[in-house]
Amino acid sequence: MDITDTAQRITSGDRRALARAITLVESGRADHRAQAAELLGALPRERQALRIGLSGTPGVGKSTFIESFGMMLTGQGLRVAVLAVDPSSARSGGSILGDKTRMDRLARDPKAFIRPSPSQTHLGGVARRTREAVALCEAAGFDVVLIETVGVGQSETVVAQMADLFLLLLAPAGGDELQGVKRGIMEMADVILINKADGDLKATATRTCADYAGALRLMRKRPQDPAGFPKAMMVSALEDAGLNAAWATLQELADWRRENGFFDKTRATQAQYWFEQDVRAALLAQLDGAQARAEMARLGAEVAQGQTDPALAAQQMLATLGHKQG
Amino acid sequence: MDITDTAQRITSGDRRALARAITLVESGRADHRAQAAELLGALPRERQALRIGLSGTPGVGKSTFIESFGMMLTGQGLRVAVLAVDPSSARSGGSILGDKTRMDRLARDPKAFIRPSPSQTHLGGVARRTREAVALCEAAGFDVVLIETVGVGQSETVVAQMADLFLLLLAPAGGDELQGVKRGIMEMADVILINKADGDLKATATRTCADYAGALRLMRKRPQDPAGFPKAMMVSALEDAGLNAAWATLQELADWRRENGFFDKTRATQAQYWFEQDVRAALLAQLDGAQARAEMARLGAEVAQGQTDPALAAQQMLATLGHKQG
Repeated sequence: MDITDTAQRITSGDRRALARAITLVESGRADHRAQAAELLGALPRERQALRIGLSGTPGVGKSTFIESFGMMLTGQGLRVAVLAVDPSSARSGGSILGDKTRMDRLARDPKAFIRPSPSQTHLGGVARRTREAVALCEAAGFDVVLIETVGVGQSETVVAQMADLFLLLLAPAGGDELQGVKRGIMEMADVILINKADGDLKATATRTCADYAGALRLMRKRPQDPAGFPKAMMVSALEDAGLNAAWATLQELADWRRENGFFDKTRATQAQYWFEQDVRAALLAQLDGAQARAEMARLGAEVAQGQTDPALAAQQMLATLGHKQG
Repeated sequence: MDITDTAQRITSGDRRALARAITLVESGRADHRAQAAELLGALPRERQALRIGLSGTPGVGKSTFIESFGMMLTGQGLRVAVLAVDPSSARSGGSILGDKTRMDRLARDPKAFIRPSPSQTHLGGVARRTREAVALCEAAGFDVVLIETVGVGQSETVVAQMADLFLLLLAPAGGDELQGVKRGIMEMADVILINKADGDLKATATRTCADYAGALRLMRKRPQDPAGFPKAMMVSALEDAGLNAAWATLQELADWRRENGFFDKTRATQAQYWFEQDVRAALLAQLDGAQARAEMARLGAEVAQGQTDPALAAQQMLATLGHKQG
């Protein structure tokens, strides 16, 4: 791959070049990693998309929301990319965005770009590559990058580390269920959207929204929020209701953070986080090769059988890796 | 240090040799790590102490309990070592066992050995070294090794990874406070001891004990437990009440697990865990040197200022470390 040429094509909006570049950053091969890093380094750094993390458990209507919200944005002339961090794909090889038919209107929209979550062996790998796909989409001139995840395990934390704003999508529910949302996720949310505020569920949605608004008011004030944030709002992806208001709210928040330095500060912290993660991951990747795995298994079995101490076996493993003792 | 000689002295019960060896495993220096691993590998592997993890938040009377429980054990002719994993010492440099006067009777008992938590920069380091100190105490012929921790962050998980049995010490409390104990900790406990079952608190202790017994019955059955476990019991460290019963219960559980294979299986899993942790820690230790830190800081600042992509900076860092790209 010609790095300079590819960087140029991506910047000029060549979708095939973008797709190929994402495939490159998703690769686990050492030479691909080096190329990917070179490409990421060669991209122009002045373009800035609004990166929106979006979490919601299955059943809240996430696909419908992304499609309606995405169509509303492209309708305003904005270019929208949709990426995903899917911890289940890390296990099963499946993907929450694998089936583009879930959002077939948006998938056919020339102003939109949908990319499923890479199938990887661990969440850390999926996360890192999604972070890099976000950077590629940004360089490709997308105005909004939506990063979807499901409310499972650490995936929200990981998405929050690559998003400017974090949206939590919830379904209307009884008061008791309010406790079901993990406190950590609530603390991460910038805007909570109660979806399905339509038909029979509208009254429940209104109550749910008030409950969450109340819960948010009780939470500790964060420095990165203007008055009134985090906010709970109602939307109906099905009826296209509240989507413009939600977008206006997100923009209001992003503008305030830009003006008050929090936008750049968060990005700086995130970039450092990914840099450190990348270095650590590469150091630990020495254990991924077939030979290293076999030796880890052999020494691990010795240790498990009590034949040697874990610390001594570890020194032997390091010697095998050609690593200086210590 | 003469490794063979030191191993022999430890095995023959030389307390000064033991103390020096613990200091060695606590050291972060690369040559010390290599020596420590060699020493741990040279120890006889047939001795087996009962390793008891003990958690309890400040105020539950943990020191008084350890002293009374320890004195009861030494009174039966058993040799008792007390170690600690203290996450706060990782931050402050202080130590929960630093002040031996907290347990001055036990500290003066020739059958007991008390060692404060090492002051280290991160919990992982403290944990690993405590695991190694446990192995040293075991080789030194102690019958019981108590590993104390406070109910903060991940410290209990870490202690559970080096203990055969896990004791949770609680104070008498109203029913509402039952929720205060993190579910994860409850699931880790083999025996819950309600301390301070004396004087004015006796009635409350009885109620609290019944509450926890009920809560334990509602929890998912674990394969490593015989009928009736995990168990909640009352003790009074102040009045030396219930300590013999608690010890009998712990022995009953340990015996059952030994007979049913769970004892060895847990130790095997733990040993493998520490082996893998050791290898990872050593690979990441390449980032600990002064030069590496400076380079990480320099590249981190570039990344934070948006001058380069995290992935490219990571590749540059790896090149600095003399690590092959990828």
